[in-house]
Amino acid sequence: MSKFPILEIFGPTIQGEGMVVGRKTMFIRTAGCDYQCSWCDSAFTWDGSAKEEIEMLTTEQIMDRLKEVGKDRFDHVTISGGNPALLQNLNQLIDALHACDLNVALETQGSRWQPWFLTIDDLTISPKPPSSKMQTDWEMLDKIIASLTEENRLSHLSLKVVVFDQEDLDYATYIHARYPEVSLFLQVGNDDLSEIDPEQLAHHLLSKYEWLIDQVMLSNTLNAVRVLPQVHALVWGNKRGV
Amino acid sequence: MSKFPILEIFGPTIQGEGMVVGRKTMFIRTAGCDYQCSWCDSAFTWDGSAKEEIEMLTTEQIMDRLKEVGKDRFDHVTISGGNPALLQNLNQLIDALHACDLNVALETQGSRWQPWFLTIDDLTISPKPPSSKMQTDWEMLDKIIASLTEENRLSHLSLKVVVFDQEDLDYATYIHARYPEVSLFLQVGNDDLSEIDPEQLAHHLLSKYEWLIDQVMLSNTLNAVRVLPQVHALVWGNKRGV
Repeated sequence: MSKFPILEIFGPTIQGEGMVVGRKTMFIRTAGCDYQCSWCDSAFTWDGSAKEEIEMLTTEQIMDRLKEVGKDRFDHVTISGGNPALLQNLNQLIDALHACDLNVALETQGSRWQPWFLTIDDLTISPKPPSSKMQTDWEMLDKIIASLTEENRLSHLSLKVVVFDQEDLDYATYIHARYPEVSLFLQVGNDDLSEIDPEQLAHHLLSKYEWLIDQVMLSNTLNAVRVLPQVHALVWGNKRGV
Repeated sequence: MSKFPILEIFGPTIQGEGMVVGRKTMFIRTAGCDYQCSWCDSAFTWDGSAKEEIEMLTTEQIMDRLKEVGKDRFDHVTISGGNPALLQNLNQLIDALHACDLNVALETQGSRWQPWFLTIDDLTISPKPPSSKMQTDWEMLDKIIASLTEENRLSHLSLKVVVFDQEDLDYATYIHARYPEVSLFLQVGNDDLSEIDPEQLAHHLLSKYEWLIDQVMLSNTLNAVRVLPQVHALVWGNKRGV
């Protein structure tokens, strides 16, 4: 039985962003990423700073931990990272979650394909815009979107682009033109990961959010889109594990 | 051709709440309501204070106005009120919107049934909790939910309950138990409609939102739910027409 590198299991809390924003969920955070985004808000998953906290857990151990932490207060589990799409055998965990009547959400950047993408209830593909300093693998992203489309998974799929500046917004506009049939969520980037006062951060992020709304409202190519803040950052600031 | 009592046509802006929170949309606000909720944030639709602003418009006039105001910058229209379900012939407008490839969202409290509910892309039924001082017509709500369920409209439907206090939360819990198959959104009530400083209001509403999240996380009967703030109130405060 496979073991998976796990950094955090916490909840229930709300999903703070994207296609099921506000959803009551448990979080499982996997360690390891093939990206190193300049503004990553979970850099501890790949920069070595939390490597002592990584536990190698089997599906059974993860299921036990979920029940221990979340008790009977959840029916939805979100797998985040890092990039959980690095884990080839993650279908074992996903199948076990489904066998317990739990819905499964997962977020990945679209740099790797896994066949188990087809079984995720709420799949967010979040390609990274220029401000991240990462390069998009368009061939891979095309393959992922095409495979999911062919298998009638569009109602379970969204694209999410984090936007920090105009160049990122242009990237999001291009993404929308390239994959017009996929639900697109634009999300305000959090450019102040060191602010420890949630109220100050909320004020700052809301003004950035208003900027993003204004830009999208002026566009005639970004119509079928949703523009969201990270509501968890508005409530809890930069705190981990909430 | 029918004329409809219209109070506002504005946008594009974002939908600030509920099942398509963040969606770029135009708003059409109809005048008139069969309820007078104690905390209504659009009381001008029924309390007579804006009666001089009501225009009786045909579908064609509304379509013209939408294009004049929103230009080519929208593909989604939200009909709100007041209670638009008072308008029997609203199917004329909805059909015209659909004929222009526009998606249509509508919000109503579930006190009236209209056959055109079956054609709404994003239908929010928002029964009012005890703090509103209104009485829920359970027979009517049962009929509405049953009709939409029978016609396979569940993917286009959500229930939304605004929560101000524990009694409202108990009401939401009862709603979820009565209609477990319908997506349920819990929304923080705005109990300060006189605050004019958006920053102060955001701070206040975020602390209320955190309270609501905490309560829902402790519950083992409110699992398949989404808990949201009104993001427009966080950004723009109590301002009208945004």
